Amino acid sequence: MSAPLTIALDAMGGDHAPDMVIAGADEARERCPNVQFLFFGDEQRIAPLLDRLPGLKAVSSIRHAPQAIGNDAKPSTALRTGRESSMRLAIDAVARGEAACIVSAGNTGALMAMAKFVLKTLPGIDRPAIASFIPTLRGESVMLDLGANIDCDARNLVEFSVMGAVFARTVLGLEEPSIGLLNIGSEELKGHEAIRNAATQLRAMPLPGRFHGFIEGDDIATGTVDVVVTDGFTGNVALKTAEGTAKLFAEFLRQTFRSTAMARMGYLLASRSFRKLRQRTDPRRYNGAMFLGLQGLCVKSHGGTDATGFANAVCVGVDLASHGFNDKIKQELGRIGSSPLPDPKAAAI
Amino acid sequence: MSAPLTIALDAMGGDHAPDMVIAGADEARERCPNVQFLFFGDEQRIAPLLDRLPGLKAVSSIRHAPQAIGNDAKPSTALRTGRESSMRLAIDAVARGEAACIVSAGNTGALMAMAKFVLKTLPGIDRPAIASFIPTLRGESVMLDLGANIDCDARNLVEFSVMGAVFARTVLGLEEPSIGLLNIGSEELKGHEAIRNAATQLRAMPLPGRFHGFIEGDDIATGTVDVVVTDGFTGNVALKTAEGTAKLFAEFLRQTFRSTAMARMGYLLASRSFRKLRQRTDPRRYNGAMFLGLQGLCVKSHGGTDATGFANAVCVGVDLASHGFNDKIKQELGRIGSSPLPDPKAAAI
Repeated sequence: MSAPLTIALDAMGGDHAPDMVIAGADEARERCPNVQFLFFGDEQRIAPLLDRLPGLKAVSSIRHAPQAIGNDAKPSTALRTGRESSMRLAIDAVARGEAACIVSAGNTGALMAMAKFVLKTLPGIDRPAIASFIPTLRGESVMLDLGANIDCDARNLVEFSVMGAVFARTVLGLEEPSIGLLNIGSEELKGHEAIRNAATQLRAMPLPGRFHGFIEGDDIATGTVDVVVTDGFTGNVALKTAEGTAKLFAEFLRQTFRSTAMARMGYLLASRSFRKLRQRTDPRRYNGAMFLGLQGLCVKSHGGTDATGFANAVCVGVDLASHGFNDKIKQELGRIGSSPLPDPKAAAI
Repeated sequence: MSAPLTIALDAMGGDHAPDMVIAGADEARERCPNVQFLFFGDEQRIAPLLDRLPGLKAVSSIRHAPQAIGNDAKPSTALRTGRESSMRLAIDAVARGEAACIVSAGNTGALMAMAKFVLKTLPGIDRPAIASFIPTLRGESVMLDLGANIDCDARNLVEFSVMGAVFARTVLGLEEPSIGLLNIGSEELKGHEAIRNAATQLRAMPLPGRFHGFIEGDDIATGTVDVVVTDGFTGNVALKTAEGTAKLFAEFLRQTFRSTAMARMGYLLASRSFRKLRQRTDPRRYNGAMFLGLQGLCVKSHGGTDATGFANAVCVGVDLASHGFNDKIKQELGRIGSSPLPDPKAAAI
């Protein structure tokens, strides 16, 4: 058995921290056995919670952090004044090589700002991106950027494409993932200039996958491509729109089954099948957004998730770490770097 | 009874034109009684179809158009070379005052280019926008722009807000519609500069509604606001993402009901209730995107719709025309124009 992986956890991040974080780690421990945890946060609150979970306690250490980053803290303020925060100290542990990955359910902007500042971007990567799995008709796809970069030039979109494809290869195990650029029409002339320039570059360069071309919003759920690439503004709006639509549909379904006695009976008969559907579409399954492009692994859990959702985010981190994800990105960037690379200046036109 | 409204129909636009257009007009005629139609297109194809529908024929005239705009025609080409097309001649009828509204299921880009060129924008409106109803938990909201303008400055977003609010007042009958700007977070510093500037202006100016502030993607389906305002790129992606998610969910539901004999039986019991749900979420119900901000009414139907969907689009046009929608926008712009208006230059910063 190989040496256990160490995961740094921001015990104070999330709506129900630290309880949810500790319960989530305990669930994750059962699902990914060879793991140990470093909990960063208020020792007086964490220690009694760990005492109640001897199995988890046996593979955990607590590192006291006197500060916690609030949900409404500005990223710049958090970066400047949060040096002793649970979030920052957990990231520091990854930078020192003490942990293979940090997982936090705290303030996204602060986490990204600190992770960028402490871990730095990978050589060849201009900006990190936030990526997540999304459910599709065909199974699962990867989508990025989901909010790290509001404005993106062609160069950024090309980098996201490479990182997303390596991710799909590494974690989804796809030999030649297809990559699509989110646009508003397949016509040549449509879309922002940055997207059109990125497409031109992606068609011309070697890729760890196959460039499919432009896709539209409805292709996301169809699963037309394995990797959906877009800027952080569009990606964030699209992801949240999809989440909102799914909730709307679930509510309509609930109302339908409650509308008549016959419908209620119908639900009872179909309830076992519906339990499976709920599992399949459970947002907790897709919890855990990856920060790609940093010299260190960082996973963001949804702030409002529960222990099961947080455990998923931890398992995503374990997956990335055990697959040597960052080494593969570096290899891929090296391979592309040795071939005629598109001029970064041309990308900014 | 008031004089009948005349609607100009592009008989050659849409995947199943002209049959679908004529059948759709016949359905619309039953739903909005006091209407007459001008069909623009290939007379030899339209006449025999009308002969089979004497009720429709009695309220219709055919105007022969020797050209039809293809679905893949570039807007600029269509504008330059399509002067004798069914689409163009139908728009011309609105410009001449012969028809109160044009409805087309043809090429969106060409329709927008021609409508802008022929009808011109309303005084005080820089750019027209595409708007549509969207289903929400609370009922229905209006969303714009859905694809007419890829890049929008603050001034455009302010204009869309005013037009959307007048629309919600006029067609949805809301006294004081709430207006939200689509963004990626409610934090002050998030989002594009144009959105932040638009918010500053909307907070300071008199509006035909109430400015709610920023909303996020999941607020669209929740129905947090009555009017969702965004640029055409983001709006188009969000709308199509929502459509794709709804289809994904419907397919998951189908699979669930087919998965076991018990589930199939459950479906039989609940099927009457599900018929209602299907009606409620039927995309044909939301067919008919309005081009707002032109000196003439123009409604775009989905190209792949059927007669029922097209009839919905026609009824949307009839609604706009019979409510005197454009007069109300003009009044509102006049009212705002006489109060301290935000400087258009400030908007472009």
